[in-house]
Amino acid sequence: MSATTYTVTGMTCGHCEAAVREEVGQVAGVESVEVSADTGVLTVSGQVDDAAVLAAVDEAGYQATRA
Amino acid sequence: MSATTYTVTGMTCGHCEAAVREEVGQVAGVESVEVSADTGVLTVSGQVDDAAVLAAVDEAGYQATRA
Repeated sequence: MSATTYTVTGMTCGHCEAAVREEVGQVAGVESVEVSADTGVLTVSGQVDDAAVLAAVDEAGYQATRA
Repeated sequence: MSATTYTVTGMTCGHCEAAVREEVGQVAGVESVEVSADTGVLTVSGQVDDAAVLAAVDEAGYQATRA
């Protein structure tokens, strides 16, 4: 199983983490999501499309880049 | 209609505001709720019990005091 790491800006709290986790968790191929508002690190496990992950983070209201 | 103002600490974002708004909105007698993460000001309109409002904020995960 591969894991991809992204940097997310704008998250401030656990609610923000939950919003990102929920949106990214709905992306096809995602097996697990780890996200931290403190570090801004988002780690997605599974065979996923970068653009779909970035779009999901945007949908949640934050900005992400591939780390 | 009376309005009561409280100071809430710990809110960081719109999700936090929504969590407080939802919990406080369920308190008996509450007619409207205004809350700002930026200022920490919570204004509740209606005939409400202070203790019930403070408990609702606590339930949402934040601390409030009567302003």
